[in-house]
Parts: sequence; C-alpha cells; structure tokens
Amino acid sequence: MHALDLNTFRVGDVFDFGETVLSEQEIIDFAKSFDPLEFHTDKEKAKQSFFKNLIASGPHVFNLVHRTKWIPLFGKTVICGLEINDWKFLKPVFADMPVHAQVKVLSIKPNAEKKHAAVKWRYKFTTDNGELVSALNSVVLHKIV
Amino acid sequence: MHALDLNTFRVGDVFDFGETVLSEQEIIDFAKSFDPLEFHTDKEKAKQSFFKNLIASGPHVFNLVHRTKWIPLFGKTVICGLEINDWKFLKPVFADMPVHAQVKVLSIKPNAEKKHAAVKWRYKFTTDNGELVSALNSVVLHKIV
Repeated sequence: MHALDLNTFRVGDVFDFGETVLSEQEIIDFAKSFDPLEFHTDKEKAKQSFFKNLIASGPHVFNLVHRTKWIPLFGKTVICGLEINDWKFLKPVFADMPVHAQVKVLSIKPNAEKKHAAVKWRYKFTTDNGELVSALNSVVLHKIV
Repeated sequence: MHALDLNTFRVGDVFDFGETVLSEQEIIDFAKSFDPLEFHTDKEKAKQSFFKNLIASGPHVFNLVHRTKWIPLFGKTVICGLEINDWKFLKPVFADMPVHAQVKVLSIKPNAEKKHAAVKWRYKFTTDNGELVSALNSVVLHKIV
C-alpha cells in the first residue's frame, strides 16, 4: 500500500499487533543505544533501583511495535511525522513480560487537493490482565488516494 | 550528582546543549534501527519524497542530545520517566545541518516525604536562524535531597 484509501481506512479502525516480549538482553541493548540509564542497562544496579529489577526504557516497546508491525503496514504511505502527544509511562515493563499492543485510528483530517491526510493514531500497550502499561498519540501525515 | 538539590535546581533554569550535526550515515544508521522509513534510510528514494532529500527521523536529534548531553548530567538522579508531551516535528533535519539544543525547567513538583520530584523539562531544537525544528516536554521523576 503506497497511499491510504479513505473509502476503506476509517476513524475507529483498530489494528491488533499481538503480544511483544522483551528479553533481558534486548532491554539492555536498546537502552545502551537509546536511553542508557543504569536501571535499563545494568542488572545488578537495577536491583537497587526503585523497581528492584531491570526495566525496559519507556519508548522501547512502542519503538519495536512501530518498527516491526506498523511500518510494514503503513510505512510507504507516510509523508512525515507531525506530532507525538500524551505519551504516558504508567507501569514498568520487565524482561519476559508479555505486553499487548493495539493501535486505533482516532481522527483523519484529509486535504483532498494536496492528496494527504493527517491521521491521529492511538497506541495502547497493556498487560495480560488488561492494565495499561503505556499509551501515546502519534499524528502522521499520509498520502491518500 | 545522584539527586537534585532543590536549593540550586530551579524552575526557569536553562541548559544549553550547543550544536548537533547529523551526518548522512548517522541519519541512515539511526533510522535503520529505530524508524526505517525510506526517506530516512535510502538516499535515492528520499530524492523522490516530499522533502526531496534524506531527512533524519524526528526523534533522532532529541535522542542524541538526551543520551550524550542530558543523561551524563542528570541520569543518576532519575527514578523513572513519566510522560512525553507536545512533541512537534516542525521542520526537517537534513544531513550536515546544525541544530541547536536547549532544555529549560518548566515546573518542579516535589514530594518532600518521598524525596522525589516530578520535573517537566522543555526541549527546544532550533536552526542557525533561530527557527524551531522540533520541541517537546518530558516529565521525569527525580530523586531529591
């Protein structure tokens, strides 16, 4: 798909991206490149930290889902990112903890003349018990047909 | 520094993180790991894209400054990240384009009993001409003395 077709792509559409599990090593590797705080990169020092264990960098689970699930579906329709909002880190993500990812289309603002639309995407990450781990809104400019 | 000292750390404090310049290769490498859209990773395809050239992934310049400038100063005081808000991507960042980074303390909500404070940091990234490239607010829970 190289452009969104607004006849079939609608507000309220939900994309279920299934479960993501981060290993200890993945948490450490991501944080070393991206967010090198000790409680993300050092298992021993993490035991002395607030959460008493290694936790994933807040953006990690979003980044993984964005890169491996969302971009393969929608990447070729993207003109550019516009905004990220209300990104809340509510619960820690530990190694080997399943996190469920879902993305919903909150709004679509099309510009028919310019053949693009600003789409507000709502990402929700939840535990097996349905508790919210993190959530964010991402506004992206897409090509439309 | 292992905790913020609220006698000296104040609302309105500004930290100037100087200029950051991303090379073409750095833009490509970052995007391959974190945001593999063609106009971030493929110079030839980028020429056909909206901006007619390779541009950096929106989060790239923030991530670099966060990792190489902010974390060395404040990383050991961090309990956890709470929120990211109003992250606007206003202008493209091309290779070899200097971007100036400044971080300001917008608010401090201390909890003296728990010895922590929620600090709202405002990041601003500007061109040599002072035009805003991107900006965001990051709310972080810090240890305090």
